[in-house]
Amino acid sequence: MPSEFELIARHFTRGTRHTTLGVGDDAALIAPTPGCELVISTDMLVEGTHFLPDTDPEDLGWKTLAVNVSDIAAMGAKPRWATLALALPDANEAWIAAFARGVFACAEEFGIDLIGGDTTRGPRNLCVTIFGEVAAGKALRRSGACVGDDIWVSGWPGRAALGLAHLQGRTVLDQARRADCIAALQRPQPRVALGLALQGLASAAIDVSDGLLADLGHILEASGVSAQVKIGVPPAPTPERDAWLSGGDDYELVFTAPAQARTAVAALATELALPLVHIGSVTTGPAGSIELRDLEGRIVEPPRRGYDHFADGPAPAGS
Amino acid sequence: MPSEFELIARHFTRGTRHTTLGVGDDAALIAPTPGCELVISTDMLVEGTHFLPDTDPEDLGWKTLAVNVSDIAAMGAKPRWATLALALPDANEAWIAAFARGVFACAEEFGIDLIGGDTTRGPRNLCVTIFGEVAAGKALRRSGACVGDDIWVSGWPGRAALGLAHLQGRTVLDQARRADCIAALQRPQPRVALGLALQGLASAAIDVSDGLLADLGHILEASGVSAQVKIGVPPAPTPERDAWLSGGDDYELVFTAPAQARTAVAALATELALPLVHIGSVTTGPAGSIELRDLEGRIVEPPRRGYDHFADGPAPAGS
Repeated sequence: MPSEFELIARHFTRGTRHTTLGVGDDAALIAPTPGCELVISTDMLVEGTHFLPDTDPEDLGWKTLAVNVSDIAAMGAKPRWATLALALPDANEAWIAAFARGVFACAEEFGIDLIGGDTTRGPRNLCVTIFGEVAAGKALRRSGACVGDDIWVSGWPGRAALGLAHLQGRTVLDQARRADCIAALQRPQPRVALGLALQGLASAAIDVSDGLLADLGHILEASGVSAQVKIGVPPAPTPERDAWLSGGDDYELVFTAPAQARTAVAALATELALPLVHIGSVTTGPAGSIELRDLEGRIVEPPRRGYDHFADGPAPAGS
Repeated sequence: MPSEFELIARHFTRGTRHTTLGVGDDAALIAPTPGCELVISTDMLVEGTHFLPDTDPEDLGWKTLAVNVSDIAAMGAKPRWATLALALPDANEAWIAAFARGVFACAEEFGIDLIGGDTTRGPRNLCVTIFGEVAAGKALRRSGACVGDDIWVSGWPGRAALGLAHLQGRTVLDQARRADCIAALQRPQPRVALGLALQGLASAAIDVSDGLLADLGHILEASGVSAQVKIGVPPAPTPERDAWLSGGDDYELVFTAPAQARTAVAALATELALPLVHIGSVTTGPAGSIELRDLEGRIVEPPRRGYDHFADGPAPAGS
């Protein structure tokens, strides 16, 4: 059986592009870009909680890094470096090789150097810490939403939740949507280009890991405001409507922007070939509260918001 | 039962001292010191692998951060920030509160801001990523040892291994050493002041997490040199001798320095009130090989080096 050091060397040590000292010493060394702040986030994925034991390891490698990239995107920053700590039940080299391929595919897609890590034995657990850079003072925070701002969401949240429901036999998706929803679940695309473009345009942003209403709620709480959200679907609960409002694990961005930015946001959607949907507006009221209305203006009862690790079942990876 | 968000807010959110934006957004923001490089390391501690289920949670909190601080010390850098990701089997608030006390005690001791984290449900797993700073180009690497350099070690490695052996009934320590060895195991003291003082003095450094011979071996391999180590103990294996040579989990520093630095190193020992023991010298020979001799110059057979997670039993926390 290969030793821990051999495994690390064989699968997790690749050349770096913008790192002073990578894997192999007590610590890595990076030279931050002058004038930038460092943006740091960490996520832990647990087998049985965030992913099933039979998850394809290459998909899992992609997703483990991608959910962290999404946090950097939500700050309007550029992902640059990451560390990866792994607990593994055994030294199954085929699994490790496929997992590493997925991690590095995501790292290359987003220009990230993998600079350090740890490998240990234990119940399968994957922990990434990611580092991005943003010009000092320019990061998008949750706390900047103002009354009167528009609320936007990228893409169509809920696809990952529908993909999971289909895989678990809780719903049946038609052929056309199946591949799209399962890809959203297994190979999420963090919205890095959107986040960078929103610098100076958006007043607040967050990524949808817990669900649209839950994550919008985090912006509203941090900003001390309320929201009115309009949904263009029937008021009766359907799997699609509930997934859109409450499904996590999508990694779209929800953001607020002043009404005068509306043309610029619409232009951005065209430029990025990414739907940016205007879903409502920021209002005065109790911090964090959301009023849902249908297109005729009737109040809609919301499904329960978000995910709680100590109360609920399977969790989105980025929560 | 308190929710995940309440638990984080209650126990892991404290004021920060040198951080632009701490816990509570998608990511944290820090402003690196101009002219410094960032030094980054990550360690994952798994219940049953690195610590026993009945480990005192406050001690465990201290140690979880301390083993990471030690990696920063080994680079000659100053620890500044850390993130903490936790998988917990339940929301046992008394356990979490005690664990957080231990983490923050260590953070305050070494001037570290806790800037982010993740809490999730799963088999108990603790993952810290730590960030230090060092003047650009001044970090102590493993690869700088030169033929003729002295080899030094701080303190007396092996105490943690003896403490563990005592707690597990594999050896019996006398009253005088018991408290000291158990403290070395449960509340290790990373050698931050020593690491900083070794900038410009040492040619290479590493912390003793896997065992003296194993970690010295890492320096020798990275530097492409050999070593001769003299041990002032009988050639017959004893628990003390084997612990000194191979016991991990101590977090002392092993370092090399040119012979002309001998007076300065000795002065440093006095200044820091910390034994710095001259244990041998760097020689030409196969990269990584170590020749052990007793004080009469006779060859001593070494015990096995270091720890392998996919071959061995209980692991040192920093490995």
